[in-house]
Amino acid sequence: MIDLSKNFSICARRMRASAIRELMKISGQPGIISFAGGYPDSRLFPLKEVADLVPSIFEEFGGKPLQYGRTEGEVLLIEELIKLAKQDGLEITADNIMVTTASQQALDLISKVFIDPSDPVLVELPSYVGGLQVFQCYGAHMVGVPTDKDGVRMDLLSRKLKKLYDEGEHYKFIYLVPDFQNPAGMTLSVERRKKLVDLSDKYDALIVEDTPYRELRYEGICPPTLVSLDGCQNVISIRSFSKILAPALRLGWVIAHPDIIQKLTVAKQSADLCPSTINQYIAAEFCRRGLLKLQIEKLKAAYKRKRDAMLAALKEFMPGESGISWSHPEGGLFLWLVLPSNIDTTKLFRDALKEKVAYVIGTAFYCNGRGHNTLRLNFSYPSEEEIHEGIRRLANVIKAKL
Amino acid sequence: MIDLSKNFSICARRMRASAIRELMKISGQPGIISFAGGYPDSRLFPLKEVADLVPSIFEEFGGKPLQYGRTEGEVLLIEELIKLAKQDGLEITADNIMVTTASQQALDLISKVFIDPSDPVLVELPSYVGGLQVFQCYGAHMVGVPTDKDGVRMDLLSRKLKKLYDEGEHYKFIYLVPDFQNPAGMTLSVERRKKLVDLSDKYDALIVEDTPYRELRYEGICPPTLVSLDGCQNVISIRSFSKILAPALRLGWVIAHPDIIQKLTVAKQSADLCPSTINQYIAAEFCRRGLLKLQIEKLKAAYKRKRDAMLAALKEFMPGESGISWSHPEGGLFLWLVLPSNIDTTKLFRDALKEKVAYVIGTAFYCNGRGHNTLRLNFSYPSEEEIHEGIRRLANVIKAKL
Repeated sequence: MIDLSKNFSICARRMRASAIRELMKISGQPGIISFAGGYPDSRLFPLKEVADLVPSIFEEFGGKPLQYGRTEGEVLLIEELIKLAKQDGLEITADNIMVTTASQQALDLISKVFIDPSDPVLVELPSYVGGLQVFQCYGAHMVGVPTDKDGVRMDLLSRKLKKLYDEGEHYKFIYLVPDFQNPAGMTLSVERRKKLVDLSDKYDALIVEDTPYRELRYEGICPPTLVSLDGCQNVISIRSFSKILAPALRLGWVIAHPDIIQKLTVAKQSADLCPSTINQYIAAEFCRRGLLKLQIEKLKAAYKRKRDAMLAALKEFMPGESGISWSHPEGGLFLWLVLPSNIDTTKLFRDALKEKVAYVIGTAFYCNGRGHNTLRLNFSYPSEEEIHEGIRRLANVIKAKL
Repeated sequence: MIDLSKNFSICARRMRASAIRELMKISGQPGIISFAGGYPDSRLFPLKEVADLVPSIFEEFGGKPLQYGRTEGEVLLIEELIKLAKQDGLEITADNIMVTTASQQALDLISKVFIDPSDPVLVELPSYVGGLQVFQCYGAHMVGVPTDKDGVRMDLLSRKLKKLYDEGEHYKFIYLVPDFQNPAGMTLSVERRKKLVDLSDKYDALIVEDTPYRELRYEGICPPTLVSLDGCQNVISIRSFSKILAPALRLGWVIAHPDIIQKLTVAKQSADLCPSTINQYIAAEFCRRGLLKLQIEKLKAAYKRKRDAMLAALKEFMPGESGISWSHPEGGLFLWLVLPSNIDTTKLFRDALKEKVAYVIGTAFYCNGRGHNTLRLNFSYPSEEEIHEGIRRLANVIKAKL
């Protein structure tokens, strides 16, 4: 066989398997209560609704749903996406939308279209690991900006933008998850959103707003999206059906300026030609029949209970006055735990597995290798009973280290 | 808005919209008989079978088919793909397979993993336009090798491989469609296949075998795949459900050495996480229940009739002794027409559209800009009546130019 080491591309040599995915393999073992991953609850999928939709779609549209489709997405789905945007305060047309093979592909295509090796990109500290992975694959120079309970720190962000701009350079984009952030759970405040959009224009940095959990709000007031504040100019917004309908459909969409959509469409053409036609028909019909709204209500009720169960269990089992703190997310799927700085959650992970409980190690989310004493907990996938028992186990593992 | 021209990556600036796709937009107008595109016949899709499968899949597997899946593909589908390989003379294990978002994604990921800008890649003259498009996007230096009725010319290929090798370099891979080639319809002979596998090893060039039509043979003897001759060492084989089940599922698969599969899996993880789970369950059940075999028989019977209808119409309408020739494909979806060298099929295209008939201009398939007097005809999508009438129209357009 040919010596592959001389054959792989620079990009291939840069690629690392996702830390999360590798851990998932271990944490998926039987008996382990897993707070790793970011899976929706499989028991809540609308199985009957989807099964009922398929024959009626074939009846109405014949063979078309099994044929190749448009690269930018099927018209009947895009019409529904325009309505969803309108309900969320954004007036757009079909030229502003491209359907993707879920939001991960949106991240990949945006990177392909904007990142050359060593181009600077701003990310949150911590940030979504799937984003970091793809930016790294394209050779981006990632610069991290700390966050607090209101999202990314605008004073520090502004300083970084200005500094590079004064040197005659600019960041290709600022990547952030503004709503119920993955992994840390906080939501970017309205004030900071407005400021961010201003800064983007001032310092020539596009904004990539990745917001797959936005519809899953359990309390508090919903701030406007960045793309609606900016009027679809410098903001590229990434949305997804994965958390509100089903990840298996692999359907997401990008909302952006038509010039950006056009370029992304050409990139998508050579990446995988078009999104799954049948899955787009299913999603479109699911919206058109009002089922999406009902499904979101169902998910919100269930996930709120699970979030509350996790918050209650943390309060019950975590030792008081020990320097342990956790987030109180208003929505989404994740809770973020900060342990005393002498505890390393990578080392702790082995102990946790012995006690049959798993989480994601915080450092996976830091582009700069920090966050050694942090970890992410998912509450959407496990049952309330598993949450209670799993947090009890985790608390015991932590107590042993204090 | 930010000036996008300074923001797009080098790769984005290299991207061109596919000539085929742009033409398809025009040729899809009502009243036009289109021999462009490479669509399967929508009337032959197994609508009832797919509609019946979905509820039974949910009944058997619960919510799992709507959940995220493994990046490399679902185990139950991979088991079916191993069986299909065995029927085609190849013994492999799950380590040799990765499921992709159809074969176009396989081309994209292979390019990502092997091509650095200006890396040399060998392609056929003519070659599949979707391959050329993706290699160009990654900045490959494409070198074309002429073909004849037995596929790529081995004497010329061998010389090119040796020349570069003697200079201390090597081609990253040789890309070819060995069965019922797209666009030219010929099949690579057994002798040349054996020779090619030997050359690959001798000159350190991987082989990318793209064979989406292989099951659609209407006559003649089926030669072994390149990957079976090579024993899964230097050959990467790309397969697809698009032409034998439905393109809308966006499912293809790669067969290769485990070291290559592993790297492609990491690349797929950041490209789109995993293939559509539900669509994989549908394809797996379709195979398991013996429906794929029946579907292929149905397609072969129908497409053979269509191919014969096109051959008969060409014989009936094309002027004799005029220097016009066409291929006689033993399978697949395409027929290749070579006109006298004074006719430019790009110019002819406008006239054809006026007469309400469309094809794909041959130059789209040539990495070196040649093929001005060639064109590709698809016979799988139009009906037999449309084939007869469309070829009559096309013959009239050509006659007017002679």
